[in-house]
Amino acid sequence: MRDVAIIGAGMIPFGHREEDSLTDMLARASLHALDDAGLGESTVDGLYVANAGGGLFQRQFAIASSLADRLSLLPAAAETIENGPASGSSALKMGYLAIASGFHDTVLVSGGEKMRVGPIRRITDMVAAMTHPQAEYPYGVTMPGLGGMFARLYMEKYGVTDEHLLAVSLKNHEMGARNPFAHIRSVATRRDIFDGEMAEINNPILADPLRLYDLCPVSDGAAALVLSTVEIAKASGKPYVTIAGIGQATDTHTLAERDAPTELRAVTLAAQRAFEMARLTPADIHIAELHDAFTILEIAASECVGFFPRGRGGQAAAEGETALGGRIPINMSGGLKTRGHPMGATGVAQAVDIVWQLRHELPADRQVQNARAGLTLNFGGFANNVLCFIFKQGDA
Amino acid sequence: MRDVAIIGAGMIPFGHREEDSLTDMLARASLHALDDAGLGESTVDGLYVANAGGGLFQRQFAIASSLADRLSLLPAAAETIENGPASGSSALKMGYLAIASGFHDTVLVSGGEKMRVGPIRRITDMVAAMTHPQAEYPYGVTMPGLGGMFARLYMEKYGVTDEHLLAVSLKNHEMGARNPFAHIRSVATRRDIFDGEMAEINNPILADPLRLYDLCPVSDGAAALVLSTVEIAKASGKPYVTIAGIGQATDTHTLAERDAPTELRAVTLAAQRAFEMARLTPADIHIAELHDAFTILEIAASECVGFFPRGRGGQAAAEGETALGGRIPINMSGGLKTRGHPMGATGVAQAVDIVWQLRHELPADRQVQNARAGLTLNFGGFANNVLCFIFKQGDA
Repeated sequence: MRDVAIIGAGMIPFGHREEDSLTDMLARASLHALDDAGLGESTVDGLYVANAGGGLFQRQFAIASSLADRLSLLPAAAETIENGPASGSSALKMGYLAIASGFHDTVLVSGGEKMRVGPIRRITDMVAAMTHPQAEYPYGVTMPGLGGMFARLYMEKYGVTDEHLLAVSLKNHEMGARNPFAHIRSVATRRDIFDGEMAEINNPILADPLRLYDLCPVSDGAAALVLSTVEIAKASGKPYVTIAGIGQATDTHTLAERDAPTELRAVTLAAQRAFEMARLTPADIHIAELHDAFTILEIAASECVGFFPRGRGGQAAAEGETALGGRIPINMSGGLKTRGHPMGATGVAQAVDIVWQLRHELPADRQVQNARAGLTLNFGGFANNVLCFIFKQGDA
Repeated sequence: MRDVAIIGAGMIPFGHREEDSLTDMLARASLHALDDAGLGESTVDGLYVANAGGGLFQRQFAIASSLADRLSLLPAAAETIENGPASGSSALKMGYLAIASGFHDTVLVSGGEKMRVGPIRRITDMVAAMTHPQAEYPYGVTMPGLGGMFARLYMEKYGVTDEHLLAVSLKNHEMGARNPFAHIRSVATRRDIFDGEMAEINNPILADPLRLYDLCPVSDGAAALVLSTVEIAKASGKPYVTIAGIGQATDTHTLAERDAPTELRAVTLAAQRAFEMARLTPADIHIAELHDAFTILEIAASECVGFFPRGRGGQAAAEGETALGGRIPINMSGGLKTRGHPMGATGVAQAVDIVWQLRHELPADRQVQNARAGLTLNFGGFANNVLCFIFKQGDA
């Protein structure tokens, strides 16, 4: 396999982007990444585009073909990849394979989603189409509903408390407020959402025990990367990042069929595979973006990935070990919780943030000092198809 | 790049499969391919699944994750790839890249579509979502509508006649009648559909100059392949096929923006790229499956690919050069015209038929004698994203 470098990264602010079509968003983010890569007269050989809901939300096919046309990248190869909320990571993997194999030398990976297409209730129902079509969906379960059940089990089994969930939420709101690309940019206080007299009203239970401030918002957004061979990256003379490891694993579609629904086996296995490929261990990672669609998932994932022993993730968050300046800063972007979670964009956006961290380009209030290796973890479905990436600073 | 072999192929009969869900169809075809590959105790590392309309038709996400679970292939990696009517070819390309890169050693490529989800008029409208969302769709154009306009232009420019279209239709109906996997298994006669007194009634104009017998039906169906390294294929001791070339190219989304809408530049370029990679020429190919969603496209593609000079394809079809026993037999499966065109399945089904031809396994009424190299050509959209594959008989 040829080594693969990331030579360009770009994003657009997530949120309710009423005036942008899905293709508009993908094009804008892609142009930022292409501009950052500074390819000059040369162009990309292929586009690998992540989108989950184009058929369902926009009635559109083959978004990648449209994007190639829109960006005047014809006749570049173009593919659309769908893996629910992990679509972005899947597209990044495909772009990686195209270059690692020698089939392409330079590719654009772009991910986007336009989810604000109607009342939230309707979108929640659409997203619930991700649950098992016979064994889960007809019974009225939603993704937050599954999240609530998972949270209850996990908290009881491992002693995670409301205080621990609160710590994740406060951290991710604080970081989101510092991130110009985040959807939710308001700092939350303990008083506002936990123990003040208005807390119950400001932060109602939505899927017991998960509250409003435990759930990611519904967002529009897009992010993009340009990948190339390491030779091309070195020749550019600019800082670059390499993809050192990729791990992927699947689990049963229904939660009920898992031996222990709390264990998230696909998360553990995806991370193990990524570390094995990168020949690194969790202790080598300086910064991570984990899939906090619900605060409980950041805690669970921080244990599955190997940053903390089982049952220690909640306490670690509460003690600031995952905050800026902590032992292993997690979601310095604000995470899915505040940057937002436009499904096709998320995996790419996680990688964009890690690229910026490893290039040491972020303002001091988000930059992890001396970050040289980073990790992203992205769930498809309710962790039934998980991807983990490990990134390293490229050699100068 | 590592060489890639096809060690298993399977299909289910196309048609109106009322009792099968989309996942059912994918699972059935996959089991045939896995059984054919005879992997024994070992399993596949990844699934690359083609489906175009799952979101739109079935409201389903991440079909590949469900299929991995359904087939008990967990924790294999699983990806869903969408490229409209070329989704099957795109998934085959992704499976190829996974093995060529060294990331996986054995993968399942499966493609399926469940399109018979309501009245044909509604499905025609859904498929029309493939046209440009601002510049084409709102004006009421459909895919057959574009096909009719294209046919008129092509016929006038290159002297293609109704007789030529008829020749393609009669050939593909005859071959479909011999193919147990085909949706339409009735032989059409010249009298029935062209010059008999009931011809106008039996074969009405649907998109002038295209008639009913010029258009592919709306079908459900699925097909699957198992890919591995050539080392694994050789070790099996069974006949296998190699993927010798892959070419892909994109063109403008709207037909109106093309310099010459008749030229199908992406088709020409995709074929050139595939031949270049395979180091072969059109004269080296013994059997081809071309994208005859409309009869005119088989004629145009047979020229773009290089089997005939421009303007000779229609006459060649009429003279039997593309029939069984002819110089270059095309669509011995019956093609999209009679096997059917369930979008996600088509590219995979084309490859399955070529594998069977190159393994010399078909009955004498479909088998091309001494076939050692084959080609498939698959359109995404109206040829705005085209893939071409070249397959060779593996060394014993």
